[in-house]
Amino acid sequence: MVKKTSKTKKIGKYIYFFGDGKAEGNAKMKNLLGGKGANLAEMTNLGIPVPSGFTISTAICTYYYANRKTYPQGFMDEVKKYVHKIEKSMGKKFGDKSDPLLVSVRSGAAISMPGMMDTILNLGLNDIAVEGLSKQSQNPRFAFDAYRRFIQMFSDVVLGIEKDKFEHIIEKIKERKGVKSDIELDAEDWKDAVRQFKALFTKEMGYDFPQDPWKQLKMAIDAVFGSWNNPRAITYRNLNKIPHDLGTAVNVQSMVFGNMGEDSGTGVAFTRNPSTGEKKFYGEFLINAQGEDVVAGIRTPQPIESLQKKLPKVYAQLFNIQKKLEKHYKDMQDMEFTIEKGRLFFLQTRTGKRTAPAAVKIAVDMVKEKLISRETAILRVKPEQLDQILHPMISPDSKLELLAKGLPASPGAAVGKIVFSAEDAIKSAEKREKVVLVRKETSPEDVGGMHAAEGILTSTGGLTSHAAVVGRGMGKPCVVGCSAAVVDESRKIVKIKNKELKEGDVISISGSTGEVFAGSAELIQPKLAGEFKVFMQWADKIRKIGVRTNADTPFDAETARNFGAEGIGLCRTEHMFFAQDRLPKMQKMILSETMEERQKALDELMPLQKDDFKGIFKTMKNLPVTIRLIDPPLHEFLPKTEEERKELSAKIDIPEEKIKEVSESLHEFNPMLGFRGCRLGIVYPQIIKMQVRAILEAAAELRKDKIKVIPEIMVPLVGHINELNLTKKYIDEVAQEVMKKHSVKINYLVGTMIEVPRAALTAKEIAQTAEFFSFGTNDLTQMTFGFSRDDAGRFLRYYVENKILKTDPFVTVDQQGVGKLMEMSVRDGRKARKNLKIGICGEQGGEPETVKFCHRIGLNYVSCSPFRVPIARLAGAWAVLERKKKQ
Amino acid sequence: MVKKTSKTKKIGKYIYFFGDGKAEGNAKMKNLLGGKGANLAEMTNLGIPVPSGFTISTAICTYYYANRKTYPQGFMDEVKKYVHKIEKSMGKKFGDKSDPLLVSVRSGAAISMPGMMDTILNLGLNDIAVEGLSKQSQNPRFAFDAYRRFIQMFSDVVLGIEKDKFEHIIEKIKERKGVKSDIELDAEDWKDAVRQFKALFTKEMGYDFPQDPWKQLKMAIDAVFGSWNNPRAITYRNLNKIPHDLGTAVNVQSMVFGNMGEDSGTGVAFTRNPSTGEKKFYGEFLINAQGEDVVAGIRTPQPIESLQKKLPKVYAQLFNIQKKLEKHYKDMQDMEFTIEKGRLFFLQTRTGKRTAPAAVKIAVDMVKEKLISRETAILRVKPEQLDQILHPMISPDSKLELLAKGLPASPGAAVGKIVFSAEDAIKSAEKREKVVLVRKETSPEDVGGMHAAEGILTSTGGLTSHAAVVGRGMGKPCVVGCSAAVVDESRKIVKIKNKELKEGDVISISGSTGEVFAGSAELIQPKLAGEFKVFMQWADKIRKIGVRTNADTPFDAETARNFGAEGIGLCRTEHMFFAQDRLPKMQKMILSETMEERQKALDELMPLQKDDFKGIFKTMKNLPVTIRLIDPPLHEFLPKTEEERKELSAKIDIPEEKIKEVSESLHEFNPMLGFRGCRLGIVYPQIIKMQVRAILEAAAELRKDKIKVIPEIMVPLVGHINELNLTKKYIDEVAQEVMKKHSVKINYLVGTMIEVPRAALTAKEIAQTAEFFSFGTNDLTQMTFGFSRDDAGRFLRYYVENKILKTDPFVTVDQQGVGKLMEMSVRDGRKARKNLKIGICGEQGGEPETVKFCHRIGLNYVSCSPFRVPIARLAGAWAVLERKKKQ
Repeated sequence: MVKKTSKTKKIGKYIYFFGDGKAEGNAKMKNLLGGKGANLAEMTNLGIPVPSGFTISTAICTYYYANRKTYPQGFMDEVKKYVHKIEKSMGKKFGDKSDPLLVSVRSGAAISMPGMMDTILNLGLNDIAVEGLSKQSQNPRFAFDAYRRFIQMFSDVVLGIEKDKFEHIIEKIKERKGVKSDIELDAEDWKDAVRQFKALFTKEMGYDFPQDPWKQLKMAIDAVFGSWNNPRAITYRNLNKIPHDLGTAVNVQSMVFGNMGEDSGTGVAFTRNPSTGEKKFYGEFLINAQGEDVVAGIRTPQPIESLQKKLPKVYAQLFNIQKKLEKHYKDMQDMEFTIEKGRLFFLQTRTGKRTAPAAVKIAVDMVKEKLISRETAILRVKPEQLDQILHPMISPDSKLELLAKGLPASPGAAVGKIVFSAEDAIKSAEKREKVVLVRKETSPEDVGGMHAAEGILTSTGGLTSHAAVVGRGMGKPCVVGCSAAVVDESRKIVKIKNKELKEGDVISISGSTGEVFAGSAELIQPKLAGEFKVFMQWADKIRKIGVRTNADTPFDAETARNFGAEGIGLCRTEHMFFAQDRLPKMQKMILSETMEERQKALDELMPLQKDDFKGIFKTMKNLPVTIRLIDPPLHEFLPKTEEERKELSAKIDIPEEKIKEVSESLHEFNPMLGFRGCRLGIVYPQIIKMQVRAILEAAAELRKDKIKVIPEIMVPLVGHINELNLTKKYIDEVAQEVMKKHSVKINYLVGTMIEVPRAALTAKEIAQTAEFFSFGTNDLTQMTFGFSRDDAGRFLRYYVENKILKTDPFVTVDQQGVGKLMEMSVRDGRKARKNLKIGICGEQGGEPETVKFCHRIGLNYVSCSPFRVPIARLAGAWAVLERKKKQ
Repeated sequence: MVKKTSKTKKIGKYIYFFGDGKAEGNAKMKNLLGGKGANLAEMTNLGIPVPSGFTISTAICTYYYANRKTYPQGFMDEVKKYVHKIEKSMGKKFGDKSDPLLVSVRSGAAISMPGMMDTILNLGLNDIAVEGLSKQSQNPRFAFDAYRRFIQMFSDVVLGIEKDKFEHIIEKIKERKGVKSDIELDAEDWKDAVRQFKALFTKEMGYDFPQDPWKQLKMAIDAVFGSWNNPRAITYRNLNKIPHDLGTAVNVQSMVFGNMGEDSGTGVAFTRNPSTGEKKFYGEFLINAQGEDVVAGIRTPQPIESLQKKLPKVYAQLFNIQKKLEKHYKDMQDMEFTIEKGRLFFLQTRTGKRTAPAAVKIAVDMVKEKLISRETAILRVKPEQLDQILHPMISPDSKLELLAKGLPASPGAAVGKIVFSAEDAIKSAEKREKVVLVRKETSPEDVGGMHAAEGILTSTGGLTSHAAVVGRGMGKPCVVGCSAAVVDESRKIVKIKNKELKEGDVISISGSTGEVFAGSAELIQPKLAGEFKVFMQWADKIRKIGVRTNADTPFDAETARNFGAEGIGLCRTEHMFFAQDRLPKMQKMILSETMEERQKALDELMPLQKDDFKGIFKTMKNLPVTIRLIDPPLHEFLPKTEEERKELSAKIDIPEEKIKEVSESLHEFNPMLGFRGCRLGIVYPQIIKMQVRAILEAAAELRKDKIKVIPEIMVPLVGHINELNLTKKYIDEVAQEVMKKHSVKINYLVGTMIEVPRAALTAKEIAQTAEFFSFGTNDLTQMTFGFSRDDAGRFLRYYVENKILKTDPFVTVDQQGVGKLMEMSVRDGRKARKNLKIGICGEQGGEPETVKFCHRIGLNYVSCSPFRVPIARLAGAWAVLERKKKQ
């Protein structure tokens, strides 16, 4: 006993009051008061009227376990003293029969952890106090509901009686009354519930539900300290290396009620408009109501301004406090408040959620108001959020029927009539009709139709399927892999769930969310000027990594340049071959039987391709343009159906049988790993020679118009240095010829995609020839994981949903595996060539985490689809700031 | 001049004679005499009668370049002195009109290099000496042919007159005579040629062809030294870091002629029989003939024994020398000799080429004769050579029409009637008819037919196509990718070039060479006992790396065990599902709509699969058996044609429409990278749980029969540790159940294939769960290179032929790329688990260079198809011995 006494002596002050604008603790006393307790003290000290209460410090928890679960002498007397302080502050009495003080009891350690005791509300209620509450609120239904909630919570949390047993009683009561929801129960029903709850308690525990509020309080405190050493909490602390003697505090706080009459109420407010960012106090409230009433949706809340008329003093106080809070926290606040009989209480204040446009406006405004620095402003907007700003959105006011949800493959919203073929899309576009192209999947031949459509919906394919990739490249809203939609292209109908839609029916799709609606949605258009522009300029100043774009047309290039792209990181030449005037020539080339025939077809293609390059070079003048030589397998260019073959045969005068034969001979089991990329140019050098000629002739001709062109010729699918060496030899030969012909010197570079694992593994050798690297992280991911992006749907979604993979590696680069290859390439490549320029042009290049990773491993630039350029720019700035914070 | 003289003084002896059984130099004087000169001296010292000659040392070359291309004073006098020594030795005189001494002049540095001067033969001939040669040989045609050859060689090599110009003259003479080949020209024609050659020389050079033999010799020596510094030689030395002052020597050696009468002759002999290895002097000769006569094939040589009668003394000398040579070189020698007027000269002796059976016999015999050590014996047989021993060969005596050449996919020869379908093959086998299955490609459904056939021929596919892999596994001769064969399976004909073969026509194929013959070839059967067995036991004693086999059936396992396999490294469970009694059940499982249906189908498969495992376990008792869980995409099991679907529908009572629907929904663009491997078991755990149950039930039941089973359960296609963790959880759950049920403890291991690059990259993580690794180098190569083995034919052959790749990476592991991943895996894997067992089970596992690589990087074992087991065993021994030599 001596020992215990001595410990008691050492313990000193162990209860800390907060209320009436003053607290005994503060934010720095987290170890003693726990996170919650310190925070309540801090808010109080800030002059925010929080309901009064006190915190029993963690020292008691330590004492409790050091002394066989006992408290220091006089502990409950001390607690009582503090309860009396609350009584004084709130003008109520604990357990009073006319105006009882009710409290909440919560645990709160310095570090929050699972397994710790939950909240107990309404403590202090008993058979007498409930009558007082009933009278005071003039709302017996509320009082008995509060009482039964307390019994339920207390029994569950403190004594471990299963919640379900209580719920079962309520179910029975509803059944008897023939009603479905709790709202339909009245005061008498809740009285009945309380009666039955108490009976259940007695049955379970062998004694009656404690009526003495002090006993209730003591038991609740015991439960908090007891929960510190429950198995879940111990495991959690072991796993997270949290010391077991840290201990938890206990927070006892007065309950307040907004349903105490016309001078009471409850509401939510923001310091600025969370939708627009406008600097204006904003919110809603309900008079004579509790928070639950707002949630139940029975009454419609009023705008905050009208509180000024109703309770002008409270409004003035609220207005001043919100100003003070924003200034203190230096960010827009989302606050919950309750007015009890004309007295304002803040239940919570936290950083408010906001839309992307609001986030940008608030960040920029706050810098102007000198509240925050530019760096802080940049970190206030998540890069991914910008997506909302850059595309039209479906207005939240649109009340349409949600038909299904697919994968959000290319952001933005589109509204249009359904068409089922690329041709129909083009025809409709010519008639200026807005259409959404709906297909099972798309193929390169659909590109024209995709361009003509407002948006694309496919029933199959993943986030890197053809439709998704092309859609993002074009900035077309696109929903893919919408497996609920059964598309019958021949009958021109699509069945979604039990609804059958036909050609011409209007749908709305959101490529940002993957949602598909029936009917025409109202759209909100993006605004890119003003604060957005300022904000992006700040980001650019911080950013170190370059941002280029993937663009195949002058139109895309222009879009991207307007979005701030600093060059083209990937121009896919093959898309040019799919244009209507090119495809037959390309097909003729593929079907050639002799070198001469092939050359003839290529000679016809050359001037067309040259013009393509001129267009792009002009748009991107003074900026580098990386052009990738032909990549896809040749069979992609040939017709697939008999009908198409017939048509082509007539057009280019080659027998249908021959077309079929060649198509079949080119068929591949795994085209992804087949005869494509640089392999084409090695077996048929004529093809890439034509392309190189077109690139350099274009550059030479523009040179005469004083337009500066910086071509970077990129060889795809290199896996072995000899492939690159041979291809570079062909490129250089043609370049010499063209430069001689035009008597100009063109500073072109020759580099390679790093998209085959072997290229990454032998980067040191490859960099001896390659003047730049560009990570093709789509293919690199496919080959490193052994995932075909076209086929992975069957298991990849399962993997992500079941946490086998944390994220989809086609969305954000897999840093452990694919990233390891990238890091090796950067390190080894620069060993061979110190100033090796390295970029990324895979789909992931515009994804913020990937941008940050690329910054970290020392890439020179990322390249992404035009609409992701601003996101990448912002992510680049984040990369710098986040690393700075870590250092 | 003083300087020069002083240098002359220092130079000392610089010409070294060899002849008459004694030489001034020896084998150690390579730097001074060059490789050739040192070797000639060594042979002479051994008592081998080589034609006399001398070597001008490299010191003269150095002098020559240090002194503005001049020689030491009295140089030609010294040369003359040595020529006279030759004259004395040979009994002839340089430039003599009745019996002229002719010599050859050759360059010879310590290291041979390209660009150096070629041989000049017959030097010493002129208008007078040619008459002497003519008389001596009584063969004017020979003499003038020799003279014109000398003029031609001398003009080309010494003076750079183009060879073609001389050839043109000969063409004209033949035209005039109306003959096609040189043999048809007579003495007068060659006289005419000599006349015209000399005229050409005068026209080209402005002076006449030198008649003075001493002048000829001086010019030839000048040319040798001059060639030391030609650009090709300089470049070569720069590239290979050979010092430029090394210098070349000049070898001047007497010519000898076997066509000097009935006491002259020429021949080739071996110290042992190069076909069988029999220890018996072996060879052939022609009396009164030159080497060219043998090549021209006008006369048939006689066996060496008959020389004993004709020239008994010469034969005795020859016999003794060959014995001495073999004893000296400690290997079977291949010797060229010439007898000039009863005098024997050796022109060359070198290690003789031999067949594989001969190589083994000779190696074993020589150890018994104490000529060589066992280690040397092992290195005398190249691992790859064993392939010849293990399979039947087409007899070299078979004179059949070669129709085409495909890829040699599975060694051995097969003869049989052509069939075009697996069913026909099975039907024929039932009638005991031998057939060769000819198809465009094979698929898993053909496996039964492949087994029934003697051999397989496909027109498409590469060395790792289905036909090739299965063929090798079965030890069936197999030729794939025979693109010259156009197979029409429906009409049952195959067109090869212009020949049309139909069902029932007999063909012969050699899977060792890729050859396809019309008709029935004679076959030579392998012998595996005797020396072969002894030899392999020696290899095993040296070998460190284990050798297992890839086997899916007890039959394969038995074969491999007989070949010395020490366990199974890969047992593919899916092949079991293709058996006729299993397939419909498997298909039913795939077509199931509910978990219950699927489980029912699996429950039917379980006992069948359990019996499969019991069979294999019994065969391999006491040895480890690695069983891979199901790997191929499910669509491989479903019927492909409408007819097959109809049939299946009737059999398993599932609507045809449903079968089609599921097939289509399972269709994949790149099945290689699709829904297969461990992905199947993760999405459908029931399947692998059935397999694990079958494995462990089999092990448990055999345990009761006291048969020791060591099962190693292998998870395919793991790319992420979470995949393995989840799969292992399922395996362990089932294992616990089975062990509890049978009350036994089974020591099973759970490991993983390393076949996805990402697995190799994250080996350290994966080894935390995996108890063993097995490199699946087929898939690892496919993914690391981005090559689909089914499609790579279009470019891979081009790559190998054009040296873009040194070797086919599906044949021998690519050490720079794929090998780098393997090394990383071994290093990182053992960091996490020190005693991690690591093997390889890809096709390359039985290829000698790959075996050596695997030994070097520390693998525990290789696993290969049964017929490659002995090759791998020998390669394993080589790996040890080669590294030992390097150290």
